[in-house]
Amino acid sequence: MLSARAIARQVSSGALDAAAALADCAARIDAKEPRIRAFAARPARLEPGEGPLAGVACAVKDIIDTADLPTGMGSSIYDGWRPRADAPVATALKAAGATVAGKTETTAFAFLDPAPTHNPHDLSASPGGSSAGSAAAVAAGMVPLALGTQTGGSVIRPASYCGAAGMKPSYGLLPTVGVKTFSWSLDTVGLMAASADDLGFALAILAGRPELDGPAAELKGLRIGVTRQDFAGEAEPGSEPALSQACKLFVEAGAKLVELATPQALVEAFRAHGPLQDFEATQALAWEYATHRDALPPKLRAYLDGARAATPAQYDEARRSSRRGRDACRDFLSEVDVVVSYAAPGEAPDTLGSTGDSRFNRLWTLLGTPCLTIPALKGPRGLPVGVQIIGRFGADESVIAVAKTLEKLVEPMR
Amino acid sequence: MLSARAIARQVSSGALDAAAALADCAARIDAKEPRIRAFAARPARLEPGEGPLAGVACAVKDIIDTADLPTGMGSSIYDGWRPRADAPVATALKAAGATVAGKTETTAFAFLDPAPTHNPHDLSASPGGSSAGSAAAVAAGMVPLALGTQTGGSVIRPASYCGAAGMKPSYGLLPTVGVKTFSWSLDTVGLMAASADDLGFALAILAGRPELDGPAAELKGLRIGVTRQDFAGEAEPGSEPALSQACKLFVEAGAKLVELATPQALVEAFRAHGPLQDFEATQALAWEYATHRDALPPKLRAYLDGARAATPAQYDEARRSSRRGRDACRDFLSEVDVVVSYAAPGEAPDTLGSTGDSRFNRLWTLLGTPCLTIPALKGPRGLPVGVQIIGRFGADESVIAVAKTLEKLVEPMR
Repeated sequence: MLSARAIARQVSSGALDAAAALADCAARIDAKEPRIRAFAARPARLEPGEGPLAGVACAVKDIIDTADLPTGMGSSIYDGWRPRADAPVATALKAAGATVAGKTETTAFAFLDPAPTHNPHDLSASPGGSSAGSAAAVAAGMVPLALGTQTGGSVIRPASYCGAAGMKPSYGLLPTVGVKTFSWSLDTVGLMAASADDLGFALAILAGRPELDGPAAELKGLRIGVTRQDFAGEAEPGSEPALSQACKLFVEAGAKLVELATPQALVEAFRAHGPLQDFEATQALAWEYATHRDALPPKLRAYLDGARAATPAQYDEARRSSRRGRDACRDFLSEVDVVVSYAAPGEAPDTLGSTGDSRFNRLWTLLGTPCLTIPALKGPRGLPVGVQIIGRFGADESVIAVAKTLEKLVEPMR
Repeated sequence: MLSARAIARQVSSGALDAAAALADCAARIDAKEPRIRAFAARPARLEPGEGPLAGVACAVKDIIDTADLPTGMGSSIYDGWRPRADAPVATALKAAGATVAGKTETTAFAFLDPAPTHNPHDLSASPGGSSAGSAAAVAAGMVPLALGTQTGGSVIRPASYCGAAGMKPSYGLLPTVGVKTFSWSLDTVGLMAASADDLGFALAILAGRPELDGPAAELKGLRIGVTRQDFAGEAEPGSEPALSQACKLFVEAGAKLVELATPQALVEAFRAHGPLQDFEATQALAWEYATHRDALPPKLRAYLDGARAATPAQYDEARRSSRRGRDACRDFLSEVDVVVSYAAPGEAPDTLGSTGDSRFNRLWTLLGTPCLTIPALKGPRGLPVGVQIIGRFGADESVIAVAKTLEKLVEPMR
């Protein structure tokens, strides 16, 4: 299907009718949805808006409030629930002329119990989570653009598993207001699209920051840090070739690779993710746990059963570790332009019973640094494997620019 | 009426029936509500809970979600709105055995357009805002406890105007999940009660931090900073005597006063409050502005008309100023145990057309530092004037402890 940028350009020039572009999307969704199951709710029809994203259909993760479509949170507790207001990020989509193509399946409250969605590359494989439907809808070519959220690895991981580009911007770049909270220090709204180019195009508009849609980076002379995040455990065999290939392409293009040693403060920040999330999730879902515990899915229920033991003292220590980690991260990233790493441990899990593992994503979520994954290679089972580009807090522009160049270099090899 | 601590103690010992304590509250509300207009919604009856706050009726500001009572946000746009879930802070109240006495009137979306509430000390005077109903309900003796929120000065100011004790804890101490967002970097949930002692009692339970309910501070040898916040403009004649009296009492009790000079970084942080709030409020209320602009009250509508001109660059600079301010604040407060200052410019405005001014509150909201006001004196018009105790981030315990001692010293003079 056409990219978001191409749709927008053609609609703007009059070469394409916005309603026709949306009808094309709706037809693609109709055709693929029975097998993929990416959507929890869809509007009766896709009405075109006006603005720089006119004609662009965007899928919206179903923990993001919409006034005109149910917002089910992936849970029977919110079955058919209609919020009063759109989340600001949904209002921003509409204000830019985009059309909400539907609400995408999410794991319940964006935790680990699988959504009903299938991986478009192998229907028996996991699409990842928690933004399962958003990643699958983009990867299956149902929509050019989708909103997801990440608290651990819920944007980057499903994008990598499904073969989509995905970005978790700097913490707070897109507002989380009207997004169901799991952990307010960690929750971050992100985007998925077919390419880094489209991510930059859409994010610049939604955030009102045109500089995010800049030119692809000139790699010559760039300093690119490499981390295999050994503090997080080992990667599976499928991920290393993708990272190695990205490194090779960077070097061939004239960039200088810098192997980064992880300072202890970052290792401790990585370990703080759990206690931080435990304490906040216990509070964020207090009503659901107190009044509907039996309706919670098993992984989330068991998690909250344990997480409520988290003490304020543990939480305060985790917050201090986070702050020290963010301070240390400034030094860690000061000598490089961006960092490249694994996007996920490997290919998508060979099961619909697990959403995979966020261990190569959690540190960056906690630090609030922007990260972006693009599909790089196919793994041993023929499923996509992404690489992840990470930047300094607020340097979303650099991350997008480098990813845009890398995806051009990778394209011929995919 | 009885304090929250006394109710809880007597219910626990069997000397008081929780249902009877609640019935007493309901009768007080019935009697006073026609004149005060503190409540936007009330339950049919007050059912006792079980726990350390059993028998304690707590009023809840009407921008805080409740599943079993309407949550109107002070706006016709949310008239009769029923959220799906309780905000976690409401769940915490109920889990502790407290009973929600009703939803209290708030300025629309917690901005500056007055709520219909009257000041219990003078029905023609402002109760302040935005937590107008919460402050008035406590000050009128309708309830022993109330929840409010503060983005500028919306807890401390109405408490001071109405003659209640009020506390804005450290940023994030009580979760803002399920609370209508105005500015996510600033919004803070706070408490009102008749005394600092009750504030400490209730906050310790709601936050799960028993140390917040410690003994009153021994003032001898304590170092107490004094700031008149001249960067924020002058106080009215009514406020200086209250501050001077507090200082005199501190000195007489053996504390050492330290006149604090405000570092430039704090002055700049104070100035950053506006641009920070402008950018975030524009996003937080994007749906309301885009779809119901005509239904917004005039001050909020005019504010948003202007605030939307705020640019990402101005916002980023305001965030940097905030961070520098928080860093500088650690030094600023490192040589004192707590700081004392004005709680509000003076007595409550002599009009129902204004909620007064938050200029002596905004810096501390932005810095995230805990602050607490207790009634200190009567002003020239016979209305209450509070003083404000401010502490280091996370040092809520010290602020409460000092305020508990001060209120014992002030009591004979009120």
